Amino acid sequence: MQKQVIDLNADMGESFGPWQIGDGVDQHIMPLISSANIATGFHAGDPATMASSVSLAKASGVAVGAHPGYRDLVGFGRRTIQASVQELVQDAVYQIGALQAFLQLEGMRMQHVKPHGALYMAMASDEALSYAFLQAVQQLSPQLAVYCMAGSATHRAATALGVRAIREFFADRDYDTSGSIVFTRKMGRLSPPAVADKVALACRDGLVDTVDGQRIPIEFDSICIHSDTPGALELIRTTRSRLLQAGITIRAPHAPSTV
Amino acid sequence: MQKQVIDLNADMGESFGPWQIGDGVDQHIMPLISSANIATGFHAGDPATMASSVSLAKASGVAVGAHPGYRDLVGFGRRTIQASVQELVQDAVYQIGALQAFLQLEGMRMQHVKPHGALYMAMASDEALSYAFLQAVQQLSPQLAVYCMAGSATHRAATALGVRAIREFFADRDYDTSGSIVFTRKMGRLSPPAVADKVALACRDGLVDTVDGQRIPIEFDSICIHSDTPGALELIRTTRSRLLQAGITIRAPHAPSTV
Amino acid sequence: MQKQVIDLNADMGESFGPWQIGDGVDQHIMPLISSANIATGFHAGDPATMASSVSLAKASGVAVGAHPGYRDLVGFGRRTIQASVQELVQDAVYQIGALQAFLQLEGMRMQHVKPHGALYMAMASDEALSYAFLQAVQQLSPQLAVYCMAGSATHRAATALGVRAIREFFADRDYDTSGSIVFTRKMGRLSPPAVADKVALACRDGLVDTVDGQRIPIEFDSICIHSDTPGALELIRTTRSRLLQAGITIRAPHAPSTV
Amino acid sequence: MQKQVIDLNADMGESFGPWQIGDGVDQHIMPLISSANIATGFHAGDPATMASSVSLAKASGVAVGAHPGYRDLVGFGRRTIQASVQELVQDAVYQIGALQAFLQLEGMRMQHVKPHGALYMAMASDEALSYAFLQAVQQLSPQLAVYCMAGSATHRAATALGVRAIREFFADRDYDTSGSIVFTRKMGRLSPPAVADKVALACRDGLVDTVDGQRIPIEFDSICIHSDTPGALELIRTTRSRLLQAGITIRAPHAPSTV
Repeated sequence: MQKQVIDLNADMGESFGPWQIGDGVDQHIMPLISSANIATGFHAGDPATMASSVSLAKASGVAVGAHPGYRDLVGFGRRTIQASVQELVQDAVYQIGALQAFLQLEGMRMQHVKPHGALYMAMASDEALSYAFLQAVQQLSPQLAVYCMAGSATHRAATALGVRAIREFFADRDYDTSGSIVFTRKMGRLSPPAVADKVALACRDGLVDTVDGQRIPIEFDSICIHSDTPGALELIRTTRSRLLQAGITIRAPHAPSTV
Repeated sequence: MQKQVIDLNADMGESFGPWQIGDGVDQHIMPLISSANIATGFHAGDPATMASSVSLAKASGVAVGAHPGYRDLVGFGRRTIQASVQELVQDAVYQIGALQAFLQLEGMRMQHVKPHGALYMAMASDEALSYAFLQAVQQLSPQLAVYCMAGSATHRAATALGVRAIREFFADRDYDTSGSIVFTRKMGRLSPPAVADKVALACRDGLVDTVDGQRIPIEFDSICIHSDTPGALELIRTTRSRLLQAGITIRAPHAPSTV
Repeated sequence: MQKQVIDLNADMGESFGPWQIGDGVDQHIMPLISSANIATGFHAGDPATMASSVSLAKASGVAVGAHPGYRDLVGFGRRTIQASVQELVQDAVYQIGALQAFLQLEGMRMQHVKPHGALYMAMASDEALSYAFLQAVQQLSPQLAVYCMAGSATHRAATALGVRAIREFFADRDYDTSGSIVFTRKMGRLSPPAVADKVALACRDGLVDTVDGQRIPIEFDSICIHSDTPGALELIRTTRSRLLQAGITIRAPHAPSTV
Repeated sequence: MQKQVIDLNADMGESFGPWQIGDGVDQHIMPLISSANIATGFHAGDPATMASSVSLAKASGVAVGAHPGYRDLVGFGRRTIQASVQELVQDAVYQIGALQAFLQLEGMRMQHVKPHGALYMAMASDEALSYAFLQAVQQLSPQLAVYCMAGSATHRAATALGVRAIREFFADRDYDTSGSIVFTRKMGRLSPPAVADKVALACRDGLVDTVDGQRIPIEFDSICIHSDTPGALELIRTTRSRLLQAGITIRAPHAPSTV
């Protein structure tokens, strides 16, 4: 039951104007992953960054998804905003459309949508929001997949609507016994071999060690390593090598394709 | 040589959040026009407003265009920003894509792009900007038309690239002898019959009276009345009646159609 | 126990760039009130509007307070943002300082701070936020008062810290039996005489009729009528006349004074 | 005619939300300089960053100035916006007031104002803008100094109005024979010893070598090294050592003082 193929995704294009996230390592990370979640301007990202991120993804053969967030630049989309479902869905439609245009200029097709930060978490527990959000996504394009946590409201809504759900394993986050991730704002530096070990265990045996000393089963279709985790480039590089050594192919759910 | 058919366009959706332009008369203006330029979020407009404006256009059988502007909400896109051609084009691509998504949800096709305010004027005199802008528009969709002034750099670039140019007659602006419009930030209240007379003369004889007492020839494919001109609703209503009485059909360059 | 003197406050300067709230009636409302809460740029207001609002207040002999809100222009500060106490306090300090500079240019002193919208409500129920917020206000200037609801966490924190609390009576909002106001996003048109009656009863007998048919006691130092309530100008005009007829003086808690 | 005392200034607090400029070296640079220009939120900086930058300056005994810019976050205030003089002055008043509040919380007094980026350059050649800007600064506080280039319109306006002008020497910019600096958006990596040599020559002999091989006289009261110049920390460290070795005291024009 070892995985033969796995997707490796990271958030890309989270610069804004003069500012870069981390050490500006997007160009080094992009060739190592199979799917890129590109920020769409509300929590991060600007048109110039979106254009160059899409270009870079194309050059690297990486599939692209939209990464819409709350309209909250200063908070980087990490603060929940008590907006109506309709507002949040319309904000996402706006952002998805904007990225779509840059993909069109490159002759690429959008693979997926992955909500960002606090919006990802809000959707994970809000059935109505997930449902409305995914209905709009589906109307925009029936081929679009959604990235989500296994068992979340987003996952359930996707299943109900027939939207392809890509369940994520968060290599750089801790899990608790319930299978939930333990979110922290400030991350310490993680050990690349330890992260690679964790991913290898998950891919080989479908198991993850929890913060409270348990080993629980985990289901996933994609490995996520956040590009703003300190030392992200090294984490991704080491994890990727380990996967390749184990004979696992790193491939996007939809092979990237031109329109 | 009287016109049999003419397009009547206005800017729509220039609200933002809690604020409306003019007296919030979009819903009354929309059924009277044939083409709507919908604000795309940088100088005005927000996702909720874009969604409702597109809905309203669909219900009214009105063709829709994107109305991208400088990223300058507080200045309403009326202040020139010394940005590079590439930045301005990428900003426009972003905005056009965003509106495109709302059209997709309604099963509509975008008819045109009309740059807003200071960007419209910058393009009118900047060959390189017009050229790069229209190349991107053309790449996004070869069917898209551009609204512009006859004889402007935008008009010349459109002709060179094979982008359909819709030349505008500004019913609520004064012309000088060179055929240029005399822009003013603050508008007094215009007389609806006088505006209707001006439009009627232009449609019947292809002539316009200038501020300096001349009568000069004018070429155009569309009549523009700005929805933030004081008393815009009455200007549009009166002008429309006059056109219909003269047996002129008001129709968008591309009949609005579903995808 | 009839009141001899009462403050009448309204939100002013809630325009942004080209957009005005309501019918742009600030200049008509200002001379009718005694205290103005001037928007400080995060939920509404821009530097030009702040400058002209302060000028107008000075010309009208009206005392000025800062009206800071969440950083949420599109949501007009009506949506709660899950930010840390420290972030919210720093946002308020920024906004209060900005308004302070415009007052300085006019030789005026700031009378009070009144949090806006969702921030007002968040503070009303959050002791820690109110406490930290008012400590910063007090450090900025010990003379500053805070507008709040009687019995709210803000009121309690003000009392504990020795910040002068101005308790508000919301003339254009309904009360329930607990003495809380029933907030609604969309307001119908209120009857000016009915609002004036309500205010007169509150000023004469210290009572208010609730939505559930009770008559309860109410304590307050200021009457608030929101300038974005439909027909606000007429509500304020009628209420003011009724107060004057009843021999009640309309006066700010601190008489406006030059530095 | 060797200088005994010189001011060393750098831009500080140019982060925004999650993003830092350069390598986030503000805390290392601050103790090495005598005057800090703190970004005030329009081109960079947010309330949290302003609070911590002011704290850091206080702890380091560094004098603080406001660093207002165009309202252009994505362009980092480096793009000229064709706004009216009045708008630009009101924008600056807003920003100066905001920083003033954070200084008040720390019991500090503002030393100066230094316009940022394109606004600095616009003022340098625009007499009317400089005059109106400095009149407002003077009204806010007669003690405030302004940083500017020797011979610029800003310098002339300051002299005419009696505002103290601190003339800058740009250690990390090239000069041409006219004594103007040659602005470039993208900077290569400068050699710290070369920059220190340049500063030493200027301080000892009042001379600077130009890009066209001349050696011209230069007058200044402060040395500016931009904190976003690549390798800024090392440039500042080396320059500072060289100055100290030469027996020159590094001191702010106004010694920082509590209110």
